Amino acid sequence: MGRTSDAREKILSAAQSLIELRGYSALGVAEICKAAGVPKGSFYYFFESKEALALAVLDEHWDTQKSAWARVLNSDEEPLRRLYRLFEETEAGQRAGQQSCGTVSGCLFGNLSLEMSNHTEPIRTRLQEIFDAQVEMVESVITEARAREEVTTPDTREAARAVVAQLEGQVLFAKLYNNTRRLSPLWANCLALLGARAPQEAVAGA
Amino acid sequence: MGRTSDAREKILSAAQSLIELRGYSALGVAEICKAAGVPKGSFYYFFESKEALALAVLDEHWDTQKSAWARVLNSDEEPLRRLYRLFEETEAGQRAGQQSCGTVSGCLFGNLSLEMSNHTEPIRTRLQEIFDAQVEMVESVITEARAREEVTTPDTREAARAVVAQLEGQVLFAKLYNNTRRLSPLWANCLALLGARAPQEAVAGA
Repeated sequence: MGRTSDAREKILSAAQSLIELRGYSALGVAEICKAAGVPKGSFYYFFESKEALALAVLDEHWDTQKSAWARVLNSDEEPLRRLYRLFEETEAGQRAGQQSCGTVSGCLFGNLSLEMSNHTEPIRTRLQEIFDAQVEMVESVITEARAREEVTTPDTREAARAVVAQLEGQVLFAKLYNNTRRLSPLWANCLALLGARAPQEAVAGA
Repeated sequence: MGRTSDAREKILSAAQSLIELRGYSALGVAEICKAAGVPKGSFYYFFESKEALALAVLDEHWDTQKSAWARVLNSDEEPLRRLYRLFEETEAGQRAGQQSCGTVSGCLFGNLSLEMSNHTEPIRTRLQEIFDAQVEMVESVITEARAREEVTTPDTREAARAVVAQLEGQVLFAKLYNNTRRLSPLWANCLALLGARAPQEAVAGA
């Protein structure tokens, strides 16, 4: 059993790296198994299709990212400082990825949204759930900041969507220009989108 | 000669539709030629590779979009009203696409940035040039608005990048949720990002 579940993990991990490098469509099951170092026969023991594998990759990646986001966004720091940390960690994560593989790989969810959401409904639905959850986590912090009168945005849901959209847009540019410094303006842009009352202080405080 | 250049146009147009529907990696030359209704042999008469075709698709699409952006952004309307029109036209374009093919296809440049920029350097370079040009066009309008003291942003280049990033991020969501209403907040978000002096008036004026 130890070896069996090990093979599943190896396939998942190889698939995630390959999808980040080359996208989903360009990959074949044989190539994934070769990179994972497992016989091709074992693939279909764990996954009924390449789509099932993609869904498992999304789930595993979101499990990890959700924990990281929760650690930052549910901490006992002040709400705006928590948002600041989220961008700081995003930039650090993309920088680490660039150092290990030479290029900024961007956001797996954004990448697959643009590549796959119009091809397969199960992947579209899963990605919608993930982005809904991200927006909800960000909204809850914005709501706290608004209760403290630190931000003035009238619509916390729309503001959270704008922040996540800005994040996806700047991560797209960080990937395209292979330059993580593209992510530095995220914090100032976030404050502007939220109508922060004292942006300069908030920046200095973070 | 008339028929020859007609075949090139047919290949370009079929390739653009197929790339918008299914991405680049998933496509083969045979399929593109079949959709274009031209013999496969003629493909290599016009394009030396699938990558050369992708570059030609990008150029043609940007030629068309650049003219549309220039018509809106260089008009004699007030600067902020021109930016408003840009978002209005973007939403109308995505709505028209959705009506004709059932799904929001998103931004071809954003799609290919996430799918292709880490695989082929010529495509990465071309997409960088296109986004640089978009940012420059938007920046020039922001500079005018700042000269009129309608916006307060201290860094017009960074503000223009933030606006284009917000556009790409919200278009990503419009595609993922197959819902063009996701684009409606673009205008309010743009005003927030620019530090518009009188956002309510600006909205009412647009």
